[in-house]
Amino acid sequence: MKQSVSLITLGVSDYEKANAFYAALGWQPVLEIEETAFFQANGVVLVLWAREKLAADSGIADGGARWGGITLAYNCRSPEEVDAVIEEARAAGAEIPRSGAKTFWGGYSGVFVDPDGHPWEVAHNPHWTIGPDGSVSLG
Amino acid sequence: MKQSVSLITLGVSDYEKANAFYAALGWQPVLEIEETAFFQANGVVLVLWAREKLAADSGIADGGARWGGITLAYNCRSPEEVDAVIEEARAAGAEIPRSGAKTFWGGYSGVFVDPDGHPWEVAHNPHWTIGPDGSVSLG
Repeated sequence: MKQSVSLITLGVSDYEKANAFYAALGWQPVLEIEETAFFQANGVVLVLWAREKLAADSGIADGGARWGGITLAYNCRSPEEVDAVIEEARAAGAEIPRSGAKTFWGGYSGVFVDPDGHPWEVAHNPHWTIGPDGSVSLG
Repeated sequence: MKQSVSLITLGVSDYEKANAFYAALGWQPVLEIEETAFFQANGVVLVLWAREKLAADSGIADGGARWGGITLAYNCRSPEEVDAVIEEARAAGAEIPRSGAKTFWGGYSGVFVDPDGHPWEVAHNPHWTIGPDGSVSLG
């Protein structure tokens, strides 16, 4: 296995609502097939798909929990950009469990949660460089 | 917000065990800080971190569910490579809820689940091209 992640699929309960939420954040699917939206990101592809289909496809007995221990992060080039993305998400209907604030690791971050309970940390790490496509390169 | 994902953080209950599992699959952290492992992948960075810290940091009340509706995918260049990765994961101690088999969408895939319940679909999609770094490009 190589160190790569091809797709991140977010299970959704209401496909139209989830799609509208990500559209409000500026995400446009490159491909939509039978209520499956594929968003080309930085190498990795983000997918929205019915949660019950994803559970069945993953061989998972789904207890319906909103969180199973995975958080995504979106890194920004400044604290101001963190605040702007958090406000964009709030306006799109996201819950904001944590507004932008200084972090213990010397950066600045906040968190929004999408309509299906999937959290995104929005962060500025002054020690990291972000490439043109938004990728963080640590190597 | 741009269409990008900077980090995927997988909450883990036993840091050493999780690290050993990913090491057995060939993943080597580029950075380790206080029981936080950062793996450089294809643009996106995969992170292993204590689940209780991730929950607190995400502003989440954690019910302890193994799955919250997110599945990762690792795309391969052939069905044979899918089988090889599934067997590599099985040997590393993963649960295999679904062995490699033909899929409804015309490809071939199986699923392994890491020690903390995070599922990875391992897939070959004959219609998609995979770049040198493992990225799927749909655009």
